[in-house]
Amino acid sequence: MAQLGLIGLGKMGFNMRERLREAGHRVVGYDRNAEVSDVASLADLVAALEAPRVVWVMVPAGAATRQTITELAELLDEGDLVIEGGNSRYTEDAEHAELLGRRGIGYLDVGVSGGVWGKENGYGLMVGGSTADVERAMPFFDALRPEGPREESFVHAGGVGAGHYAKMVHNGIEYGLMQAYAEGFELLEASGVVQDVPGVLKAWQRGTVVRSWLLELLVEALENDPELAELEAYVEDSGEGRWTLEEAIDNAVPAPVISAALFARFASRQENSPAMRAVAALRKQFGGHTVKTKVTD
Amino acid sequence: MAQLGLIGLGKMGFNMRERLREAGHRVVGYDRNAEVSDVASLADLVAALEAPRVVWVMVPAGAATRQTITELAELLDEGDLVIEGGNSRYTEDAEHAELLGRRGIGYLDVGVSGGVWGKENGYGLMVGGSTADVERAMPFFDALRPEGPREESFVHAGGVGAGHYAKMVHNGIEYGLMQAYAEGFELLEASGVVQDVPGVLKAWQRGTVVRSWLLELLVEALENDPELAELEAYVEDSGEGRWTLEEAIDNAVPAPVISAALFARFASRQENSPAMRAVAALRKQFGGHTVKTKVTD
Amino acid sequence: MAQLGLIGLGKMGFNMRERLREAGHRVVGYDRNAEVSDVASLADLVAALEAPRVVWVMVPAGAATRQTITELAELLDEGDLVIEGGNSRYTEDAEHAELLGRRGIGYLDVGVSGGVWGKENGYGLMVGGSTADVERAMPFFDALRPEGPREESFVHAGGVGAGHYAKMVHNGIEYGLMQAYAEGFELLEASGVVQDVPGVLKAWQRGTVVRSWLLELLVEALENDPELAELEAYVEDSGEGRWTLEEAIDNAVPAPVISAALFARFASRQENSPAMRAVAALRKQFGGHTVKTKVTD
Amino acid sequence: MAQLGLIGLGKMGFNMRERLREAGHRVVGYDRNAEVSDVASLADLVAALEAPRVVWVMVPAGAATRQTITELAELLDEGDLVIEGGNSRYTEDAEHAELLGRRGIGYLDVGVSGGVWGKENGYGLMVGGSTADVERAMPFFDALRPEGPREESFVHAGGVGAGHYAKMVHNGIEYGLMQAYAEGFELLEASGVVQDVPGVLKAWQRGTVVRSWLLELLVEALENDPELAELEAYVEDSGEGRWTLEEAIDNAVPAPVISAALFARFASRQENSPAMRAVAALRKQFGGHTVKTKVTD
Repeated sequence: MAQLGLIGLGKMGFNMRERLREAGHRVVGYDRNAEVSDVASLADLVAALEAPRVVWVMVPAGAATRQTITELAELLDEGDLVIEGGNSRYTEDAEHAELLGRRGIGYLDVGVSGGVWGKENGYGLMVGGSTADVERAMPFFDALRPEGPREESFVHAGGVGAGHYAKMVHNGIEYGLMQAYAEGFELLEASGVVQDVPGVLKAWQRGTVVRSWLLELLVEALENDPELAELEAYVEDSGEGRWTLEEAIDNAVPAPVISAALFARFASRQENSPAMRAVAALRKQFGGHTVKTKVTD
Repeated sequence: MAQLGLIGLGKMGFNMRERLREAGHRVVGYDRNAEVSDVASLADLVAALEAPRVVWVMVPAGAATRQTITELAELLDEGDLVIEGGNSRYTEDAEHAELLGRRGIGYLDVGVSGGVWGKENGYGLMVGGSTADVERAMPFFDALRPEGPREESFVHAGGVGAGHYAKMVHNGIEYGLMQAYAEGFELLEASGVVQDVPGVLKAWQRGTVVRSWLLELLVEALENDPELAELEAYVEDSGEGRWTLEEAIDNAVPAPVISAALFARFASRQENSPAMRAVAALRKQFGGHTVKTKVTD
Repeated sequence: MAQLGLIGLGKMGFNMRERLREAGHRVVGYDRNAEVSDVASLADLVAALEAPRVVWVMVPAGAATRQTITELAELLDEGDLVIEGGNSRYTEDAEHAELLGRRGIGYLDVGVSGGVWGKENGYGLMVGGSTADVERAMPFFDALRPEGPREESFVHAGGVGAGHYAKMVHNGIEYGLMQAYAEGFELLEASGVVQDVPGVLKAWQRGTVVRSWLLELLVEALENDPELAELEAYVEDSGEGRWTLEEAIDNAVPAPVISAALFARFASRQENSPAMRAVAALRKQFGGHTVKTKVTD
Repeated sequence: MAQLGLIGLGKMGFNMRERLREAGHRVVGYDRNAEVSDVASLADLVAALEAPRVVWVMVPAGAATRQTITELAELLDEGDLVIEGGNSRYTEDAEHAELLGRRGIGYLDVGVSGGVWGKENGYGLMVGGSTADVERAMPFFDALRPEGPREESFVHAGGVGAGHYAKMVHNGIEYGLMQAYAEGFELLEASGVVQDVPGVLKAWQRGTVVRSWLLELLVEALENDPELAELEAYVEDSGEGRWTLEEAIDNAVPAPVISAALFARFASRQENSPAMRAVAALRKQFGGHTVKTKVTD
């Protein structure tokens, strides 16, 4: 069994440590939150691992990841390997690889999918980097991914950046899939023709063309709350949908579904859309149409 | 000068009566609202006109129009002509024409554009029906349309139904145009790069590619209320946008812009979109993402 | 074991007969194609069944289904039951039920999902009609649906029409799901960042958020033809996507993803889009932009 | 009357020189194309102007503009002013201003709209920069813009970058407007209900809600080629639509219409969309649907 340093023990990293340990690996975890951390500092984590080391970074994308990589470049030695598994934009991977590479430290970027269910089900993994580095990290990948053929939950997608790129597109697709189910759900609710809407979604789980894991999750949500009455129609987005759309623009790829899904989220967060006030203003101007105005008395 | 019966003296019909009279025509108007009506009943209106009569119907589309046409079929005589100028769906025109035609009464369908500004500026007119009927009604069309070459504000678009069809597509385009300006307006507001947003729109009125009458109306709205703060982001739709999209579907014509504009209106009227609650539910299920839930106690 | 008359032995009906027989039911099949038919006529089919009969209609939606239902209304007896399992528009079910009901014949509408894989995997079933009729037909439903809990592949969705309505929405969602994967696939192909695109999709099959049966099918297609080079970018639509969008319009439900997926299909079938020629014309007019013109000499 | 150096005498700059000279200004033009250039080099242009100089740059956005600005920073003196009027991304303006500012040279960014018609009609102008610089350049702005109130064709939109930002949004809106007309045109053509499609568009020019300059251009195009048969359905995009969409993403502004218009252009340029081949592949897999395959032997 191998040993791994794991930095970041939040929702994802915490569970990954569990799954790796259950597979027999020795994992030294570090988190700023001392309650979950195995060591007191990054330096301690590095000291606790035998060289050559493998260190997996699982902290929030952006500044936190960059900071961690920068510190690791100082702390690690030639021949060590850093795996960056956060939801980073793929464009950052080249910089990270370059920074570490100058000191002889290897770099892999990994897109990790599966959410809170990954601990139990295993995680889908998309990896970018050199073949040698990928092979070296394979014991950890094999422990994290679900049972079944390796190629159904793991891919060496290409060079540095390809892992995060694949994960970015995965999330863009995810936005579209979720919105498709959501529109269908709303139509079923709105029309009143179907009397048992949760029952219909439940019955789509076997045999139908639309069966999927997301559908199963929606069925589960509806079992607890058949009209989703506990939730607000307010949906955040975490970056990867935006990046997917920006990549589509850069590559002149039509992406009407992914963009529609992203814009629906944007709109869900608006209380008083300026655009729709502009449309209301126009209708009032040309048509004398009755529009809703604020009562200011 | 000619004489015309005009049924329906609402926002549109009332102004049209004015414009027709200013052009020298004799107009007998009827409305259920006695305060604006010239006669007490449809029968009185018919009696007040010399045969062969021309009667223009300008009442709400749907049941009211159908009822009026049915009554006119009883009251009018062979050789009379009915002009239906409301926002009716073009599919109803064939029925109206057939009903009247059985009694020897002619029929024209007319799409009338221009809103409350038509009284002053004149109305754009799209007409469906026979050439003979169109020629007979031309004095009224010429009075209603703006100055300038006839073909720039009037068209004999085709047989019965073609007038309303052209008007339907006109309104579908209008939805798209309005939404395009609205999205641009919102982006200017949101980015903060431009400091004088109303000034930018105002400056687009001459020389630019996007200059239009709708832009002028938006500029006017912004002069009274530079942030459109008096209005709510709540936009009705009156039917013709929906019909346009249904026609696009029937003819396998991609209509991404017109549909996006229509859906933006639908969404503007939702307080708590079921679709977006479903997306929120999914994110909560797979990601443990924080979502907004209702505080219930 | 029960007996069933099954009308229509095409791609769907043929396989359903197999699956029903494997479950031990006695099935008398009729098709206009004598090679696959068990009997020579509808009358023979009716004669071959003991009363009270259950007859499943699985012929093309529209005229063929209506014709079959009309003939069955003549041939069947009070107390018999007709199950309409084609891809009919839900609005037709009320008429069918009424026609048969006048003669004391029961009616169920069933949405059947699963395509050519249903024979092996079982079919997802969405049913509309009375509880008594549903219970009577349950042995056939149980034979057709996949193994596992009944409520995960079967639903009594509501009264007459609810089964086809649920299937219509199912297919609308399906359009959106397919387009989401397709956009992601195209972006992966176009960007060149990922070197093993089929491998990425293959690796999404376990553990990821986007895993689904449609994804598995896409993976399979890519194994035979890694760049889908054998296929043309030409996609038909079979009606249910259009109906879903029309229902969304009627119910004022925003459906940007489903409509985008439908319009992408429309556009895929156009060789020379009039709309895009109009845009090209506009660019040429205002900008002197170079546009592609036909070489005519 | 004032003197101006004008760099770049292409479609836009050439016409602008004409219009400026007609207004009485002294313009020294430079272009790499000696046939249209007044001087042999940038250095000659600078030498030909009395200090303090005003130099307008009107060369292609990107590398050419950056190169020109860099050279001007060397050639010009403290107190001179550079006006950048190309279709540059607004993010470049800060760099340009900084580069010039270090040498005491002022900077204005100007969005110029109007296309090839600007020479005759005048150009719409959106300007970013300091008030003092704007006032200094006002004689040139007044000469270039159309007749009528200044604020209807000119705006000082804000600080450096605001002019190009306003122009970017202008062009994003333009994409949406064009696509809206185009969809309506295609529907009119496809349905066959209207017999005189060019006549309908022509009749929308006065009195209607959709009247605009773009409509007039479309009418003109249809007069020369009533079915736009000379054109191909192939539409380029020049960058500003993409930037607008990227800004919408960055600001979380829903932009369904502008994105739909951009994607329609992307799709118009694809001969064999990978996405639609993926959808075709899926339909073939699950439904045994007939799809178009390439004939290979």
